[in-house]
Amino acid sequence: MPSHQPSTDTLDAQYMTRALGLARLGLNTTSPNPRVGCVLVVDDEVIGEGFHVAAGGPHAEINALNSVTSANRSRIRGATAYVTLEPCSHHGRTGPCCEALATAGVDRVVFGCEDANPSVSGRGLAYLRSKGIAVAGPVLEAEAAALNPGFNARMCGQRPYVRVKLAMSLDGRTAMASGESQWITGSAARAQVQALRARSCAVISGHSTVALDQARLNVRADQLPASTAQMPAGHPVYSGVRQPLRVVLDGQGGLTGQEPLFQTPGPILWVTGHGPAIERENVDLLALPGQSGRVNLPALLQALAQRQCNEVLVEAGPTLAGQFVAQGLVDELIVFMAPVLMGSAARPLLQLPIETMAGKHHLQITDIRAVGSDWQITAKPQGAGSTGAQ
Amino acid sequence: MPSHQPSTDTLDAQYMTRALGLARLGLNTTSPNPRVGCVLVVDDEVIGEGFHVAAGGPHAEINALNSVTSANRSRIRGATAYVTLEPCSHHGRTGPCCEALATAGVDRVVFGCEDANPSVSGRGLAYLRSKGIAVAGPVLEAEAAALNPGFNARMCGQRPYVRVKLAMSLDGRTAMASGESQWITGSAARAQVQALRARSCAVISGHSTVALDQARLNVRADQLPASTAQMPAGHPVYSGVRQPLRVVLDGQGGLTGQEPLFQTPGPILWVTGHGPAIERENVDLLALPGQSGRVNLPALLQALAQRQCNEVLVEAGPTLAGQFVAQGLVDELIVFMAPVLMGSAARPLLQLPIETMAGKHHLQITDIRAVGSDWQITAKPQGAGSTGAQ
Repeated sequence: MPSHQPSTDTLDAQYMTRALGLARLGLNTTSPNPRVGCVLVVDDEVIGEGFHVAAGGPHAEINALNSVTSANRSRIRGATAYVTLEPCSHHGRTGPCCEALATAGVDRVVFGCEDANPSVSGRGLAYLRSKGIAVAGPVLEAEAAALNPGFNARMCGQRPYVRVKLAMSLDGRTAMASGESQWITGSAARAQVQALRARSCAVISGHSTVALDQARLNVRADQLPASTAQMPAGHPVYSGVRQPLRVVLDGQGGLTGQEPLFQTPGPILWVTGHGPAIERENVDLLALPGQSGRVNLPALLQALAQRQCNEVLVEAGPTLAGQFVAQGLVDELIVFMAPVLMGSAARPLLQLPIETMAGKHHLQITDIRAVGSDWQITAKPQGAGSTGAQ
Repeated sequence: MPSHQPSTDTLDAQYMTRALGLARLGLNTTSPNPRVGCVLVVDDEVIGEGFHVAAGGPHAEINALNSVTSANRSRIRGATAYVTLEPCSHHGRTGPCCEALATAGVDRVVFGCEDANPSVSGRGLAYLRSKGIAVAGPVLEAEAAALNPGFNARMCGQRPYVRVKLAMSLDGRTAMASGESQWITGSAARAQVQALRARSCAVISGHSTVALDQARLNVRADQLPASTAQMPAGHPVYSGVRQPLRVVLDGQGGLTGQEPLFQTPGPILWVTGHGPAIERENVDLLALPGQSGRVNLPALLQALAQRQCNEVLVEAGPTLAGQFVAQGLVDELIVFMAPVLMGSAARPLLQLPIETMAGKHHLQITDIRAVGSDWQITAKPQGAGSTGAQ
């Protein structure tokens, strides 16, 4: 990877912050593409800005160039383009953005982070330099990379970014012994779960959540938090809420296909442990046999990456969620903690057998915030049996 | 209780804040007396200030009056005294403070909150008014009352303020199935536990914590957080760290008296379920038989209040801590949450059998803060089976 002189210019950071904000408007819609924002600045004045809305539509840079008014068109020559991600150099569904920027005549390009794909990383920047365009960056690299954890994981590791969402009491319980669990958390926390679904390419769940809890796992537009980015109605490329692929793990083949999830519109992937049992319209079937009649989870994640899933959300009971943790497949745990005690007879947060303190799993808690009267805890696993951060 | 016109004066709030800060310097030393601070102000200038250090020593008002330099002595006539707690009107080990303020000639008294003892509340203020002194308040009443949760609980309800301290993993576990538990949390969290012990009149624990975990439950001066208020060395009334009364619940009489706790200096109360088993020097014995060979916890709290315990800290395993919660005896839960997963075979936060969601205990989480790489959660029980705060 070529080294770059990080720009320390305050203005650069300011306009990159604006571009990051634009990129976030595509949070729920750009996949399988990355979220990208672009701002065009000349003489400390913004003359154009845009973001990538959805795959098949123009990239952020093109939207920004197209947003420049005719009065300002001539000023593009001499402008600086702030782009959260290195402009692409490949001919995909749209032409390469670095060519468009060069053709439009921008003077300088400031980028947030390089493309995560090692086989193309730096190519766009090299092209720009070859055209005599000044290139600066990375600027706010961590923030820019954090826009696209799933795209980056897929580009670098051929796997999606895996979030596991859990709801628990302060004493770490997810359901009563009887299975009764609705509702542990309040409506604000449940709205945050809707937001997590909306940004995910796939939501993974298991047999009991689908059969017993009758989860539908779809995004309900009217339950999204008010802060959720919404596309303007009638946007040419995209409008309305996009439903994630709902992935149901049914290793024992116990589902009937009559559960509420199957009656709710949106794509479904029904994953069994041993060959497809039932053929259905609008439902993809996939057999990924693992151990003990379970689905092979690493193979599942690989299959989802092949289906261009960037971020996937696991919303499952303690058994399946525990398997993801035990197998080291989790990038991020999001735990909604309700201010209640459910007691020691209740079900655990995760089915995760550990015998000694040395075998405990270490986490890094990266965020704790109030959500209504509940608390949202974000934690990143550091691996089992490790010494953890001191 | 007489009604007072709350003062909205910004200056009053400012000087009361200063008096509150002084009062907090007595956090670990005033019991069984309350923590009280006092500031004397004339012409927007502080001419004296003081706080109550320890029982038997002068009250805050007297320390403040004594701190006035001879050059300023004449200015006390015309000064305003800010006192976090209504000045006392009774002749205890020291003379009544309201008389001292009146004799010194202060013009005006601003108080934080009234005395919590309903039988004396308002008497000091009435005395001051009878001497022609202007009285204003309450000012910052909630903050002033929060200085003394234990003193207030004892004055109003003849019981101490009960804190239960717990250390757990993110998944709500306190020890491995084998009992192995040291250490779940890091040194910063353990220092906070030392601070909780230091402010408590008593630390309550159970048989297994004392016998198996070999807990000593004393305050170790060298492990207190740097922020802990420390008395100046050689203070006439108090110096060094005060040890809380260590209360060991031994309902089955299984302790030998040879455990490390008994070898560690400081007062001990050995509570059994059926008559004292062993007579020992420096150890008080108390029989408080309850159900199933357990100690009667409400009777214990009553006994501790009679021994003038204001704040008591429960540092026990899931069984005893669970009994305090189940019996509704807890004012505050302090949970240190470590960024680890200990798994579903590990021991629960509390032994607390609950069968249905309707029976869950509701809490109000009043504070969450980072302590090293752990998190300290403060929660106040709202009762079992209640609807909780919405």
